[in-house]
Amino acid sequence: MKQILVTNDDGIYANGIRALVEVASQFGEVTVVAPDRPQSAMGHAITIGKPLRITKVDLFGDLVKGAYAISGTPVDCVSIGIDQLFEEPPCLCLSGVNHGSNSSINVIYSGTMSAAMQAALAGIESVGFSNVSFDHDADFTEVKVYAKKIVQLVLDKGLPPSKLLNVNFPNTEDGKYQGIKICRQADALWTQEYDARIDPQGRKYYWLTGQFIDRDKGEDTDLYALKNGYISVVPVMADLTAHADLPHFADWTLGA
Amino acid sequence: MKQILVTNDDGIYANGIRALVEVASQFGEVTVVAPDRPQSAMGHAITIGKPLRITKVDLFGDLVKGAYAISGTPVDCVSIGIDQLFEEPPCLCLSGVNHGSNSSINVIYSGTMSAAMQAALAGIESVGFSNVSFDHDADFTEVKVYAKKIVQLVLDKGLPPSKLLNVNFPNTEDGKYQGIKICRQADALWTQEYDARIDPQGRKYYWLTGQFIDRDKGEDTDLYALKNGYISVVPVMADLTAHADLPHFADWTLGA
Repeated sequence: MKQILVTNDDGIYANGIRALVEVASQFGEVTVVAPDRPQSAMGHAITIGKPLRITKVDLFGDLVKGAYAISGTPVDCVSIGIDQLFEEPPCLCLSGVNHGSNSSINVIYSGTMSAAMQAALAGIESVGFSNVSFDHDADFTEVKVYAKKIVQLVLDKGLPPSKLLNVNFPNTEDGKYQGIKICRQADALWTQEYDARIDPQGRKYYWLTGQFIDRDKGEDTDLYALKNGYISVVPVMADLTAHADLPHFADWTLGA
Repeated sequence: MKQILVTNDDGIYANGIRALVEVASQFGEVTVVAPDRPQSAMGHAITIGKPLRITKVDLFGDLVKGAYAISGTPVDCVSIGIDQLFEEPPCLCLSGVNHGSNSSINVIYSGTMSAAMQAALAGIESVGFSNVSFDHDADFTEVKVYAKKIVQLVLDKGLPPSKLLNVNFPNTEDGKYQGIKICRQADALWTQEYDARIDPQGRKYYWLTGQFIDRDKGEDTDLYALKNGYISVVPVMADLTAHADLPHFADWTLGA
């Protein structure tokens, strides 16, 4: 029986992870290892200065072999899950379904995607799923239909070594999708601005705000696919080297 | 006068940031914006569920225009620094000097590098510096000599848009370096294992441990350069797309 790890960053009580558990349980035996509280925007953070706790929870009934809430980050969940909660290593990791987009630059902030990447580094086929809708009561019916098709593709065709998938479901008026598109990550950014306020003690504090700016004109990007009603699928890797720019540095030499 | 942002992830009281301030102050007016406590291994985490505080500190005397401790992550420091603490945007961001290596896969866990990346996304030329030695009393004399040379190269030659540099200084017996090498990120990983213990209340808790595994045989990697006494310089980007693998997915189609 295939052993499958399901995780997320919205926390083990989020609706999105239940949708993914329902999909995963059709492919094998599911163990859920997810944060005990929301851990959005934690990126690839890991817990190094304090220990972790594992709490067994009964949230998913017969759909799972076991479910565990972890007192750490999404990446912690994958690492401690693989090390402590599987008798044989899982062959598949599904992360999400995230409430909110992880397309384009969001991928580097996303705990959902970092958890999936941690599994990929450990040699496990891995997919992160996100729904562009932030609505925590969003209808996951179509998401589940396509998540199942994508998992089947991954199992049938395999992923290149250490690579994972970043899957995002668009917001469409009728809740239907045009299909899937293999894309590259759009060049976008968040302008991170802060709203300064004064607390009752007269001290300043600052809330993060900001605008999302898509500065990519390409029609092969995840943002373009999502805007046109397609599910975006970006193959992702942990190698951050700007390979195409290496020639720029050909004459950067400094001897001893 | 050039405006320069200096940050790190070890916290504003670490020795490494003082070394970098000394280098930066030779190129322009320095503003330090760094975490108020150690924030190693925070990756690209940002603070979204609670507000931030800014505390002005006097740690660097005349070397800086101002220094500010932030109650958040390294990426928070760069964002709130640019938005709140500069009259005109900085033209250069220097992050570090980190105590410990950020070569190879460490780059995705590193708050030092994520802070530098956040600045690069905002259009600021940006470099992360790390010393392979974890010793907090390490001698930074040679580090400062070469950090200055590298900053001069960046200012003279410029970096490709949105790209940044990951600079690591090797541990050498005589404290001298062979020079610099432009490299790609080595394919390596941490096996994340957990040491289970029992607390005084009889409950289990888990400490992260693990081994570093270099699984890359290449001689063009940062790990190879460091092993041979060179300073490794990897051009880094925030695009995680596995571009070379896109052909693998040519027949991954799902219609509506």
